[in-house]
Amino acid sequence: MDQELLEDLVAANRILAEHGVIDAYGHVSMRSPRDPRRFLLARNIAPETVQAEDILEYGLDSEAIDPKNHASVTERYIHGEIYRARPEVMAVVHNHSPSVVPFSVTNVPLRALFHMAAFVGEGVPNFEIRKVKKGSDLLIRTPALGKALAKTLAAKPAALMRGHGSVVVGENLPRAVGRSVYLEVSARMQLQALLLSSKITFMDAAEVKASNPIQDYRRAWPLWRDKALAKARAERK
Amino acid sequence: MDQELLEDLVAANRILAEHGVIDAYGHVSMRSPRDPRRFLLARNIAPETVQAEDILEYGLDSEAIDPKNHASVTERYIHGEIYRARPEVMAVVHNHSPSVVPFSVTNVPLRALFHMAAFVGEGVPNFEIRKVKKGSDLLIRTPALGKALAKTLAAKPAALMRGHGSVVVGENLPRAVGRSVYLEVSARMQLQALLLSSKITFMDAAEVKASNPIQDYRRAWPLWRDKALAKARAERK
Amino acid sequence: MDQELLEDLVAANRILAEHGVIDAYGHVSMRSPRDPRRFLLARNIAPETVQAEDILEYGLDSEAIDPKNHASVTERYIHGEIYRARPEVMAVVHNHSPSVVPFSVTNVPLRALFHMAAFVGEGVPNFEIRKVKKGSDLLIRTPALGKALAKTLAAKPAALMRGHGSVVVGENLPRAVGRSVYLEVSARMQLQALLLSSKITFMDAAEVKASNPIQDYRRAWPLWRDKALAKARAERK
Amino acid sequence: MDQELLEDLVAANRILAEHGVIDAYGHVSMRSPRDPRRFLLARNIAPETVQAEDILEYGLDSEAIDPKNHASVTERYIHGEIYRARPEVMAVVHNHSPSVVPFSVTNVPLRALFHMAAFVGEGVPNFEIRKVKKGSDLLIRTPALGKALAKTLAAKPAALMRGHGSVVVGENLPRAVGRSVYLEVSARMQLQALLLSSKITFMDAAEVKASNPIQDYRRAWPLWRDKALAKARAERK
Repeated sequence: MDQELLEDLVAANRILAEHGVIDAYGHVSMRSPRDPRRFLLARNIAPETVQAEDILEYGLDSEAIDPKNHASVTERYIHGEIYRARPEVMAVVHNHSPSVVPFSVTNVPLRALFHMAAFVGEGVPNFEIRKVKKGSDLLIRTPALGKALAKTLAAKPAALMRGHGSVVVGENLPRAVGRSVYLEVSARMQLQALLLSSKITFMDAAEVKASNPIQDYRRAWPLWRDKALAKARAERK
Repeated sequence: MDQELLEDLVAANRILAEHGVIDAYGHVSMRSPRDPRRFLLARNIAPETVQAEDILEYGLDSEAIDPKNHASVTERYIHGEIYRARPEVMAVVHNHSPSVVPFSVTNVPLRALFHMAAFVGEGVPNFEIRKVKKGSDLLIRTPALGKALAKTLAAKPAALMRGHGSVVVGENLPRAVGRSVYLEVSARMQLQALLLSSKITFMDAAEVKASNPIQDYRRAWPLWRDKALAKARAERK
Repeated sequence: MDQELLEDLVAANRILAEHGVIDAYGHVSMRSPRDPRRFLLARNIAPETVQAEDILEYGLDSEAIDPKNHASVTERYIHGEIYRARPEVMAVVHNHSPSVVPFSVTNVPLRALFHMAAFVGEGVPNFEIRKVKKGSDLLIRTPALGKALAKTLAAKPAALMRGHGSVVVGENLPRAVGRSVYLEVSARMQLQALLLSSKITFMDAAEVKASNPIQDYRRAWPLWRDKALAKARAERK
Repeated sequence: MDQELLEDLVAANRILAEHGVIDAYGHVSMRSPRDPRRFLLARNIAPETVQAEDILEYGLDSEAIDPKNHASVTERYIHGEIYRARPEVMAVVHNHSPSVVPFSVTNVPLRALFHMAAFVGEGVPNFEIRKVKKGSDLLIRTPALGKALAKTLAAKPAALMRGHGSVVVGENLPRAVGRSVYLEVSARMQLQALLLSSKITFMDAAEVKASNPIQDYRRAWPLWRDKALAKARAERK
């Protein structure tokens, strides 16, 4: 496996933890650039501790090619089924982003009001697991639940998961990570704006369209990546 | 005393402080695995400074077996009386969790809306000390007050203590600690959800039932424990 | 000057900064235990950088006995005039506590709802400088303004200063510091409780009376002090 | 270039990041003291990583005098056009201050209620880019947009940028930095005050006038600067 690629994914795990987007739970994967029917995902450990050797390869059935005796993440079907349904998606984040979860249990839609999270304007549907499976523990434990989530996500950049968290995707890893970081910021700003006024100027469709194609968080990524990998190296010693 | 066990309790003290669940006050105990009529609790110091040698053994009367000239925690009766009333409980946390206290002074019940804190759906009663003792300083200073609190807690996973904090229990230490961490998160999310909308989708009874038996925060615990003990060791030098 | 005493005051400066109660501004003083007509206060620098040699001695006229060529804090009259008016007060904190300032610009009184800040129940008056001096910059720049503030404070443990911050006093330094830390926490909790419900169970008069005489934050103080002085020593190197 | 001057600007970048006023984006510039038709601005990297060698010199047309093969900040026109329109301005900050953005998408004006941010009372206009260019990505990508922003700013100390952030200016660098830090604090306090009460005592015109001329954050600056440069030096090793 390409070392730089693995380091990107190690960094992604740690960046999301550092920004408070994922806690000891949550996970981030990337599609293999060598084989679009494979993806890379860390074994079942806390993201902020992930090192390169913790990363396993999976097929689109969300089963590890070689588990190396490691337990896999329970909700790996989120990743496999989204990669299956969305050929252009190269990275998937699942998180419990604290300011996003409250929106998922209300009927208040997330809307674009901050240019760093303009992608919200493309729509962030809310996955109600109860429509697919009653009495669940809200986790995506089967391929069928993964498929249902992918269906709700459809062609959007992110979807809420009611009472649970969200899933965020991107055409590359920095985009999926950056969107996750700024979805949290945007949700907090939207709550504050709603507390200030019932009349909010959201970004309009043309503004969303102008912003989104170019937003890949490339100014933040090198900073985030360097800090994360420096910490990963320090923890090895 | 088994060293790993003591380290678990040292870690629990520090994890709760690190997550902002307990301040310089608050405490966490575990029932002795060798004798169900004994429990372990640190002497009267700030939790984030606890080391293995600070831990004392207590009987169910909440008196230290051998105080070693150390002062005991004033509110140790919380622990003794809950262990007496709840044979299956192996760990007890008392905290001043900042987002939880506001609920304790209102009639708004904590309800389950985040799957990481599904246990809230089993019910979190509110202990009003004024019903037992008027004009108190709100502290559980006597066995009688400990018994009254245990009675309010009944068979539930946690109870609020009006104007003071909460008590959280578990069948093992990681569960009591994880529940304390996520009770704080859940309370914050509930406040935010209530600010967004009066119509909230709480977890339903079947979802709570499906979630709770399996939630022991085992993915978080090794990360939390390792970080806490590394810090404890560093402070010794 | 007694070294332990100076270290107490060094620690107090740094504890308040560490807890976010004072920013680069704000100050804390203690009455000299050798001469009740003198008090100790750091020269005009950011509290989190204070070392023992930065501390000067003042008379009750708020003028430095020996300024050692150092500039004094502009608002030192807060301290001198309160020590003059309140013989039992041994320590005074002035801060810009972020959750407290919003209360100072409304008519909503701070009330006791958290046992760690039970002293709030004795009353926290709000000093409106405009009643004494119109068109001021809100600072206590003269003995007359210090006297007016002391008059508003009267026999209370703390007073808000409209649009500016607060002043908190105590019969000893840990008490004034601990009250400042928990006044911030209590204000945040009160805002959150008010957002949840219009019906709040505040501590009643008997509970306030039972709590306050015994609350000197002695469990927190050694932890806070040790951490602060370790940092002060590290910065010297 | 004068070394102390460059260090001031290095520090300014890092201070703003440390206070959460700028994220990986945002930027701060200072007018050259040697030539009022020039200004200094770091190349297009995350502010918290800026070192002296990252700083480039620009003309008032916002083009680098000698780009040294480095990419420039996209929104550099904010700086050039404000320096052109405001001869007395010596420093400009552009940020995405998280508590300020929500005000920019509502009709609720920022008002002065905290003496550390008294400058707010001089007025903080809100720049609606849509009035100048429809369907933009909200960024100031051209001299024309920079001019329009400068026109909205007019003679004020700061202007919001709808859905994007704000621009803050000063007659010297510490003032522009300090105003940015306290604009964020003041916005948070105003939201909290509005949640508490519809009747708020804002600073009156005379109080604003008395406060503002003297506020240059000179007590905070040396502390902030020393900490920032110590970190910059440590990162070099």
